[in-house]
Amino acid sequence: MKKTIIVFSGDLDRVIAAFIIANGAAAMGDEVTMFFTFWGLSTLRRPEKVKVKKSFLQALFGWMMPRGADRLGISKMNFGGLGAKMMKIVMKQQNVTPLAELIESAREQGIKMIACTMSMDVMGIRKEELIDGLEFAGVATYLAEADEANVNLFI
Amino acid sequence: MKKTIIVFSGDLDRVIAAFIIANGAAAMGDEVTMFFTFWGLSTLRRPEKVKVKKSFLQALFGWMMPRGADRLGISKMNFGGLGAKMMKIVMKQQNVTPLAELIESAREQGIKMIACTMSMDVMGIRKEELIDGLEFAGVATYLAEADEANVNLFI
Amino acid sequence: MKKTIIVFSGDLDRVIAAFIIANGAAAMGDEVTMFFTFWGLSTLRRPEKVKVKKSFLQALFGWMMPRGADRLGISKMNFGGLGAKMMKIVMKQQNVTPLAELIESAREQGIKMIACTMSMDVMGIRKEELIDGLEFAGVATYLAEADEANVNLFI
Repeated sequence: MKKTIIVFSGDLDRVIAAFIIANGAAAMGDEVTMFFTFWGLSTLRRPEKVKVKKSFLQALFGWMMPRGADRLGISKMNFGGLGAKMMKIVMKQQNVTPLAELIESAREQGIKMIACTMSMDVMGIRKEELIDGLEFAGVATYLAEADEANVNLFI
Repeated sequence: MKKTIIVFSGDLDRVIAAFIIANGAAAMGDEVTMFFTFWGLSTLRRPEKVKVKKSFLQALFGWMMPRGADRLGISKMNFGGLGAKMMKIVMKQQNVTPLAELIESAREQGIKMIACTMSMDVMGIRKEELIDGLEFAGVATYLAEADEANVNLFI
Repeated sequence: MKKTIIVFSGDLDRVIAAFIIANGAAAMGDEVTMFFTFWGLSTLRRPEKVKVKKSFLQALFGWMMPRGADRLGISKMNFGGLGAKMMKIVMKQQNVTPLAELIESAREQGIKMIACTMSMDVMGIRKEELIDGLEFAGVATYLAEADEANVNLFI
């Protein structure tokens, strides 16, 4: 049965957890929808700078939010990125799939990834700044998906 | 169908997300119950000081927890309230409903807002310190509501 | 009906919330499965040092993660453990069951506590370092449990 995950957090560890659950469910034959909102949008940003028009405050938000999965910090003991680096190295040593591949696998498995348009407006994130293969929608779409699902998580 | 949301967090961004989901669901005809616990109780505090008797530690907790929706900080890059202010300004620029109106709308739409009595005891928050229109109950009530719902989130 | 809770967080306040919901549901006759992953594993660690072989980074993670329920900090205003101490004292004053007893009660009520094996690998936590009475499994087991449950929370 369908699963939905709201990815509110932009912390590497939480985002990894979200994608492991999503990919696991898809592998077991479930339809999965991930809804990225607020800081979770960081995960979907392209790593390169994209020139778009923003208000001053939106530019500030955009400047403070990491550009893409590879730049996320962890929620505890990040120490300016050191914690995130540590976690990535240990994950590699333990043969745990890195986040970039988890995202790729999500796409390949047909997991629906929705970027929350209201958050994009607030954070000043434009479609051009996000990776390919996303859908764009708001809370009504999320709720319609959740109504069809038997597991709905907020991460 | 019914939705329940546990509002554990007292971070402005998370609380906004909770109310947007709750109001969205109510607008689509769903019954919604929000259960405020721990830091989430901050959202429900009256902005003015209310004189009530507390133990020393309860008074300390009460003094450290923001009084009301307008004083909440954001979970990331708050910088002593600056981040929260930024987010409010951008939300206004983007015509996103501010939190105070989201709470008002929740009330008007008949969303059930429950303050967790156990957390109130621990945090030393008295009924007189909270806004009107709340119900007061514990985990058994939450579970009974969740049993009737098809979407249950912990925020 | 069955309930599942993913305990991702290792913050005292969030872990307490998780166990109060779990114990409440079990008391009402529900089957409950708690799935401890990432920082949530801290809750399950034995308080004493256990000698096990780890890589350098795993040892560093292990050294930074609190050993057991009694050493967890709170998510806000912890001030190096002072906040956690405050919360414990107020909980005692208010006759709220302390975390150690909540865990004991979870065990007695037959709540299934699963330690996430992938997180154990990443964090370098060995079975010998964890308390008794746990099961060990991965995301597939979690998803199978969640599929049978009507309330699934991520904390």
